Amino acid sequence: MSDCIFCKIVKGELPLAKLYEDDDILAFLDIGPIHKGHALVIPKEHHETILDIPDDLLKKQIVIVKKLTKAIKTAVKADGITIGQSNYKHGGQVVLHIHFHIMPRFKDDGLKLWPQGKYEDGEMDTYKKKIIEKLE
Amino acid sequence: MSDCIFCKIVKGELPLAKLYEDDDILAFLDIGPIHKGHALVIPKEHHETILDIPDDLLKKQIVIVKKLTKAIKTAVKADGITIGQSNYKHGGQVVLHIHFHIMPRFKDDGLKLWPQGKYEDGEMDTYKKKIIEKLE
Repeated sequence: MSDCIFCKIVKGELPLAKLYEDDDILAFLDIGPIHKGHALVIPKEHHETILDIPDDLLKKQIVIVKKLTKAIKTAVKADGITIGQSNYKHGGQVVLHIHFHIMPRFKDDGLKLWPQGKYEDGEMDTYKKKIIEKLE
Repeated sequence: MSDCIFCKIVKGELPLAKLYEDDDILAFLDIGPIHKGHALVIPKEHHETILDIPDDLLKKQIVIVKKLTKAIKTAVKADGITIGQSNYKHGGQVVLHIHFHIMPRFKDDGLKLWPQGKYEDGEMDTYKKKIIEKLE
């Protein structure tokens, strides 16, 4: 994708603080970190969302996420790590090239990454059935 | 783990709105959803964080996350999906049994799941080196 900034990074057309690279996967520091050490893990091949990436490549990607999580946690002495992966513009995805965020977390960092809601009586069952119906 | 609520769910000792089950993986609705349809995907075997789960099982888990993401997006007509996976108490992990959140998102839902910070000059390089040093 000629206008995808992650494809440009893969091609070496944009600078990056590279953390890891193999034939399929690239990892680098996010330039707008939630906390310093926040990294992104992407496939080199362009796939837009988790629904578009082939299973085999997704499996490679998640294993590198794990590998980097371990390194980052130790390197920045994080108390925890939150992993995030957004899909589609309204899912918070800014660059439409599938990426996992690895976000170092610290005791009392005050971040509440997602709020909780609730179901009314019987509603869970309705949602459950709707979803199961769509499972392929 | 006798005191782990997800292990109790796996053993059938607690109720659940089950969405998917195979030999290794179980998926069900989160009882405190960010939006209705919010699901959790767990391995049946107890592993605390992404650093503890064996690679093969993690690969199975992420493929089921993808499968459910597709079903949930269609079922609840979501505009996007955010996937989240927290590790350790200070990373926001409430149940210490590795789980991926699949969170439906909607246009203008007003959620800003993670804030952005910035690096001072030269600081990215320092962090990059610290992390690479710890890569195994």
